[in-house]
Amino acid sequence: MQNRGNQKVKTRRSDRLIDMTRFLLERPHTLISLTYFAERYESAKSSISEDLAIVKRTFKNRGIGILETIPGAAGGARFIPSISEEECRDFIESMTTEMSEQDRLLPGGYVYLSDLLGRPDVLRQVGRVIARQYLDKQIDAVMTVATKGVPIAQSVSSYLNVPFVILRRDSKITEGSTVSVNYVSGSSERIEKMELSKRSLKRGSHVLVVDDFMKGGGTVNGMKSMIEEFESELVGITVFAEATFEGHRMIDEYTSLLKVDKVNALDKTIHVSAGNYLEKVFGNQ
Amino acid sequence: MQNRGNQKVKTRRSDRLIDMTRFLLERPHTLISLTYFAERYESAKSSISEDLAIVKRTFKNRGIGILETIPGAAGGARFIPSISEEECRDFIESMTTEMSEQDRLLPGGYVYLSDLLGRPDVLRQVGRVIARQYLDKQIDAVMTVATKGVPIAQSVSSYLNVPFVILRRDSKITEGSTVSVNYVSGSSERIEKMELSKRSLKRGSHVLVVDDFMKGGGTVNGMKSMIEEFESELVGITVFAEATFEGHRMIDEYTSLLKVDKVNALDKTIHVSAGNYLEKVFGNQ
Repeated sequence: MQNRGNQKVKTRRSDRLIDMTRFLLERPHTLISLTYFAERYESAKSSISEDLAIVKRTFKNRGIGILETIPGAAGGARFIPSISEEECRDFIESMTTEMSEQDRLLPGGYVYLSDLLGRPDVLRQVGRVIARQYLDKQIDAVMTVATKGVPIAQSVSSYLNVPFVILRRDSKITEGSTVSVNYVSGSSERIEKMELSKRSLKRGSHVLVVDDFMKGGGTVNGMKSMIEEFESELVGITVFAEATFEGHRMIDEYTSLLKVDKVNALDKTIHVSAGNYLEKVFGNQ
Repeated sequence: MQNRGNQKVKTRRSDRLIDMTRFLLERPHTLISLTYFAERYESAKSSISEDLAIVKRTFKNRGIGILETIPGAAGGARFIPSISEEECRDFIESMTTEMSEQDRLLPGGYVYLSDLLGRPDVLRQVGRVIARQYLDKQIDAVMTVATKGVPIAQSVSSYLNVPFVILRRDSKITEGSTVSVNYVSGSSERIEKMELSKRSLKRGSHVLVVDDFMKGGGTVNGMKSMIEEFESELVGITVFAEATFEGHRMIDEYTSLLKVDKVNALDKTIHVSAGNYLEKVFGNQ
């Protein structure tokens, strides 16, 4: 009987640890109370506290993220997703290799990225890497511009657990009333227009801007103007890839995961290296 | 000493279960070999097999999904995400309530959805619900049209672990060569054009089409033409919401999570009910 009792306890702990892991991973940055877990698993709060201590240790050791635990009967746990420095470096290195493939070069020095930004494994890592930089910042919304920024914004937003908003160059009737800004497209020096649905962002929001590719920084600058229109605050700017830009860049403070250094249209080669992310987040080494 | 030994074994099992859960959740539909896990955790394959049996049971009991285990030393495990019928019903019901809010009605009988389709909690459930319908189907890519279909495609693609591709109404230089199709916009009866990058889809792919909103079905019909252009096969069509449509709908075989039944522009009310998903997936009850 003693044995069976132990077996049952052990089984229940395993079950709790597995379900708790899944539950926390799906609700980042959300405080889950001890009471909630105690009821979900019909277990004593003391057992739940022990479970959370085990989860916390594993999350830390495996570089999954930080499990903030608030002690006491009124306490709980909050999962902050992160990623280890090693995983960041591995991911960025693997992307430099994939992006340097010859057949990615498009006319005008652009780089074909749609396949990478449509792959769930790549997007998961992009989201974890970008979210890591803003772990300790208050962010209320992630902002991007349609279409290619959307997958990046969505992935970052899922790890920060805040909504994302999409600026559009073409007005659509399904957005309701919009606010529009004009901006100078940095690379072509044309004046363009972007719109954002009025109801999509609250005044006074803290906004993180993300995009797929930055050349002159004109689009990102347009997003900055939009944030001002909504009397909100820019927390940071991170792009998946930046291109070397000869002229005067309109944005000076930004983070890039990757940098397209050299493009040779003659022999169709691209050289891609790590952007300033690693230096900004982990310092010079 | 005996105790300490046991403690160590127990600690390692807890650690393995937590990390394994995370590892499997992030790699759906991917066979992970026993050998890989044995090396990752420096543990015997027999212990890993026991771990996987525990994870399998919990995933099943909690409606997280199916863990397919392949027995034997050369075996492994593959995680197929799913969702319980109860969670599907709860989610769809909560969406009918949120969508019936008065201030969603836009001129022309359109419904404002951008806030819902920018919320990570909503998108996670949309992805799980849609992926569940196609658990046993071969799918090589998820297809949608820019911009509002993208978040849905991305979420479904992450649970099926296949890439997604985006059709665009405006050609962009960053897509390289494209294939274009013309289609009749069902609601307005205009002829429109959509393009897809040539290299984004392989011939002979099995394609799942998803979109945010369907009225006449013209856009979805355009995606069907595009699939034919790529000599590929349509596996299914699922939309987040369909509107009642008076005319002749161009698509007869589709799934919808939600249905906008009645729109009253005078008092600005919308009535939203469950779409045909529940009946198609769980049958009449």
